Amino acid sequence: MTFFEKLEDLKTRKNSFLCVGIDPDYERIPAEIRRQDKFLYTFCHSIIKATAPYCIAFKFNFAFFEAFGAAGWETLTRLRRSVPADCLTVADAKRGDIGNSARHYARAILEHLNFDAVTVSPYLGFDAIEPFLNYPQKGLFVLCLTSNPGAREIQDYPGGDQPLFLHIARRVQDVNVHKNCGLVAGATKPDQLRVLCETVPDLPLLMPGVGAQGGSLNAAMQAVPHRNILVPISRSIIYASDGTDFAEAAARAAETVRDQMQAYL
Amino acid sequence: MTFFEKLEDLKTRKNSFLCVGIDPDYERIPAEIRRQDKFLYTFCHSIIKATAPYCIAFKFNFAFFEAFGAAGWETLTRLRRSVPADCLTVADAKRGDIGNSARHYARAILEHLNFDAVTVSPYLGFDAIEPFLNYPQKGLFVLCLTSNPGAREIQDYPGGDQPLFLHIARRVQDVNVHKNCGLVAGATKPDQLRVLCETVPDLPLLMPGVGAQGGSLNAAMQAVPHRNILVPISRSIIYASDGTDFAEAAARAAETVRDQMQAYL
Repeated sequence: MTFFEKLEDLKTRKNSFLCVGIDPDYERIPAEIRRQDKFLYTFCHSIIKATAPYCIAFKFNFAFFEAFGAAGWETLTRLRRSVPADCLTVADAKRGDIGNSARHYARAILEHLNFDAVTVSPYLGFDAIEPFLNYPQKGLFVLCLTSNPGAREIQDYPGGDQPLFLHIARRVQDVNVHKNCGLVAGATKPDQLRVLCETVPDLPLLMPGVGAQGGSLNAAMQAVPHRNILVPISRSIIYASDGTDFAEAAARAAETVRDQMQAYL
Repeated sequence: MTFFEKLEDLKTRKNSFLCVGIDPDYERIPAEIRRQDKFLYTFCHSIIKATAPYCIAFKFNFAFFEAFGAAGWETLTRLRRSVPADCLTVADAKRGDIGNSARHYARAILEHLNFDAVTVSPYLGFDAIEPFLNYPQKGLFVLCLTSNPGAREIQDYPGGDQPLFLHIARRVQDVNVHKNCGLVAGATKPDQLRVLCETVPDLPLLMPGVGAQGGSLNAAMQAVPHRNILVPISRSIIYASDGTDFAEAAARAAETVRDQMQAYL
């Protein structure tokens, strides 16, 4: 099964398209946990264990692990191995480099760390993405329409007949011979999201921006009906409580989102 | 002193604008070294020690270290600390993410690993670059015109009156209030390089593509006269020999490049 077939299967079995975002910010990890040895692993692992019944994937934001140096990378390796079999793993690494470097990033993330999917940046063109395409069983989400305000001046760059993000979307569709590609498209831009979905109706979406970033699940779902979609939510789940009950609070928050998702399944 | 002032100072003192690229590819590390414990550190550290007299900076390509997992990150940390004081360090990490994630990448690379400069990707817009800008003493090279063929369809994306890479170059110039910004612009495209230099004559360049990638130092230097420039060369130096004399061979190769650079100083 490809990554996206597994995703559809889990969606059906678990009645969810929630992806919990593991973004461990030192400042926001509960103080009582921070005092412990191995607090980074403890915090993340507790969240994973508590929320796994309500989500179908975990997205690990590499920035937050790299901020802890080599120990962060070691923890990421251990955490990846601790994810239950009924949840997929997405490396939110946003890598993008040429030729041999891209091959090494792909090997690092998809082989060494053994993630199921990865986010990549298209600024260096499609030869930079190719090494990731050559893993037919893994998923690849190409940055297309991101949720931050400043992205507009680049991603909407006008071109001849279409903005850059639509050009990228069409090109991802072209290279998607193994059906292992999707797009990152933020929920904060329903109008562009709608155009995107009309242009490439078959590409799955990783859709950040719901929750803390202000996007509404309902507005986003109006724009993307009947689509293979994965919604990553991080802060409003993993920091639902700043006390020692953080894992239970995360589970309740994840369950609530899962329940809201029923309306769109 | 800013990063670019330090670079100019070293250029004058060492008669060089060579940056040795540390891209340790397992397959190309001499077999006799690979058999040793800690071979990754040994190989890279020997290259650094041998070539330091001829270069003014080392560029560490993160892809190659991440391919070794947590041990690679640990080695990168140790190697960074081993670089002599008369050489600067560039983290070739090509990071690009939004808000809080970007802040964490900046902290990881510029504080935790303490690199002097970093490469970043502009696809997510300038709010994604801002956290890196807020380190006035560090250098920031924004990907602009890269040396790979596939980059053209994105970086030359036409826009109204200028291709995307020129838009990015002008915007980098706009945000360069701390004089800590430069551009990554490949030596393999002398025509675009010339236009770029006419458009933003004051921005320093990190100019890959000379050597193994086919760009000529002479052609590139014709396009970029009198400019603060740093030329990273990796493969033709660090793999100059596949025997146990690899470090001496690297030193000789670096010395030869340094000598060729005299004509342009």
